[in-house]
This record gives sequence, C-alpha cells and structure tokens, in this order.
Amino acid sequence: MDKSILPNDPINNLIRELSGLPGVGPKSAQRITYYLLRSSEAQVTSLADALITLKQKTKLCRICCNVSENDVCSICSNPNRNPALVLIVEQPQDIIALEHSGAYHGRYHVLHGSLSPTEGVGEGDLRIQELMNRLEDGAVQEVIIGTNPTREGETTALYLKTLISPLGIKVTRLARGLPYGSELEYADDTTLSNAFEGRQDF
Amino acid sequence: MDKSILPNDPINNLIRELSGLPGVGPKSAQRITYYLLRSSEAQVTSLADALITLKQKTKLCRICCNVSENDVCSICSNPNRNPALVLIVEQPQDIIALEHSGAYHGRYHVLHGSLSPTEGVGEGDLRIQELMNRLEDGAVQEVIIGTNPTREGETTALYLKTLISPLGIKVTRLARGLPYGSELEYADDTTLSNAFEGRQDF
Repeated sequence: MDKSILPNDPINNLIRELSGLPGVGPKSAQRITYYLLRSSEAQVTSLADALITLKQKTKLCRICCNVSENDVCSICSNPNRNPALVLIVEQPQDIIALEHSGAYHGRYHVLHGSLSPTEGVGEGDLRIQELMNRLEDGAVQEVIIGTNPTREGETTALYLKTLISPLGIKVTRLARGLPYGSELEYADDTTLSNAFEGRQDF
Repeated sequence: MDKSILPNDPINNLIRELSGLPGVGPKSAQRITYYLLRSSEAQVTSLADALITLKQKTKLCRICCNVSENDVCSICSNPNRNPALVLIVEQPQDIIALEHSGAYHGRYHVLHGSLSPTEGVGEGDLRIQELMNRLEDGAVQEVIIGTNPTREGETTALYLKTLISPLGIKVTRLARGLPYGSELEYADDTTLSNAFEGRQDF
C-alpha cells in the first residue's frame, strides 16, 4: 500500500501516522488501527495520554543528558554510583541494557547519536560539549567509551579519545570479542579479528 | 523485560501501553518510545490526535457494519455497487483486501469476528442479527460467505448457511484451492484436498 495515496479519513490517517514509527510497516499499522477500532475508547485514550505525557513530563538530565522526569536523573542523584567513572553511550536505551546487566556502578553520559558525516551528524549535534564541561573539575578519573561497534560508533569513539586524553583522564573502551552463547563457526571476520587481537590471559 | 515490573514513569508507561498492541513486543515498544522521545512534540501530538479522532469520528455503517465516518459507508451508498450481492467477511480489514483485488462489485457485511466457543464468542457477539434484518426484504439474491478458511471461520460459515438457506437466498462461498504463486510441493494437506475436491473444468 502506498501511504501517499491513502485518503485522509480517521482510519487511514492513523495508519499513516503509525507507519512512520520504527519497525511498524503499513500492514502492522493497519492491524494496530483495526485492533484499536475494536478496543474501548478508554484504552485508546490511555495510549494517547501516554504519548502526550511522554513529551510533557520528560527532559534531559542536566548532568548526563539521559532522559529523566527530574532535572537530575535517578542514576546521577544516586550516592551509591561512583562519580569517578563515566560510561559514554549513544542512546538512552543503551543505559537500560547496561543497567540490566548489573555489571556497572558508575555514571553515564548520553551523546544522543554518533558522528555520521554521511547523515550530516557532526559534533555539534551530539552532547559532547556537556561531556567536556563535566570533565573540567577533575572529579572523573576514567571515561569508558561505550559507543556501538559500528563505523559511526568507532568514529565517535576515536574523536572522543582525542578530546579527552589531553585532559589526563584515563580513556577505556568496552571490550570487543565473541558474544556470549555464540558459535565461533558463525562469527563474522571483524568479530573474530577483534577477539584475536584482544585475547586475554587465561 | 517483564512489563509488570516497569516503574510508572512517562517512558515506561508508554512502553507498557505500546506493548499491548498487536505485533508490538516490549523491545519494539521501547524502540518506538525512544524514537518518539527524539521526535518533535508536534509529531507526537499528531499521532495522539489521530488516535483520539479514530474513536470519535468512526462508527459502524448501519447497513453493512463496516467502520465508516458516516451513517452509511461509501460502499453501501455507492449506486454502482450491486445491492443484490452481499459478501460476508469477518473483519473490516478483509474488505480492504477484497477491494484491492478489484474483483468484487457487490456489497459487504462485516460480522466483527467469528464463532469461537473456546474464546467465548457466540452468535450474539457477531453482527448476525443485522445481517438477517438486511435479508428480510428480498432484495439480496446471493450471499457469498467470505469468512476465513480457519476452524472458526468454517464453523461460522456453516452456521450462516443454516440461517440463510431457508430464506430461499443463494448461498455461495469463496473458493478454496492453491494460492496464486505457490508451489504444490509446499502446499499443506488441507489446501491440496480442497484444490482436488474443488477442481474446475479447464
């Protein structure tokens, strides 16, 4: 179905709106719309309210730029988190995955993207200035770069290293290697190269 | 992620709401939510408005029970559609597929479901009474049953046939057989049986 030829009635209007969401194609947008047509008005209103509230009640933490209901997010305001460690991630949802692992007890910094010249994302589009301001007072002893192992993520990691190293702060990076539960047979070349180059004493 | 343990902040609230939609799991709900956090407020409001409008501006056509903005839907009010033919479908979205095929020029009747004793859906839950009222005046000459080729759809088809046949109206059913573009080698037993039993002169 070509979205542009949909007439502008309430049904096709919602199908068009939903089709723009990530991972939602025209078919699923149609399925969701007809599901909502069968749902109660209260259920649909509750979803609409949740959407409105999302934008009205969230802001960026003024320390780490994570999304938060308050000026300072729950991680930055937690006295049990080590303020000397800052893990830099691309997106807020990366924090959810890391927190779920339970492996990290420092703080974060969210860039809200990665450097991508092809998509026109430059350093001014990321929360890099906020990061540099944080590092000024010398309280941070180690910065762990947790950008994605993609071309954009690697570019961003290198750029951050050249910015932070001169400050005398230790810069590390999340390890690259074989993912847990994977089979060597099916690992790609880059993963295997990374696993070899980063081999650890055993 | 267990939805029930999500805290009730705006982000997790929307993730929970979206996770209830068909085809949207917790992971996609999270992806959509963070996508919307990065979107403009206008974009999110537009989606919320489309949801509210969907319920406020749609009703069921009083003739065929299809969803419509008006008392009578665009198909029932179209003088070029043959009023002597009524094709019965389970859901409004079935009409979209049939209209897209361009093969049919009569009218429809939407049951809004199929008989399913296991799910507690009985004849009173479907728009069967509305169908029978339509058939009273003798204007309809043929009823084509287009319920799904599933157990529930077949049960519904048989039930409708016993109701409609005594009225002296011709009852037909959409053909079962091999779907276009399929390979016989991979067709299931029921499809092959149907294709054999329903074999046509050539």
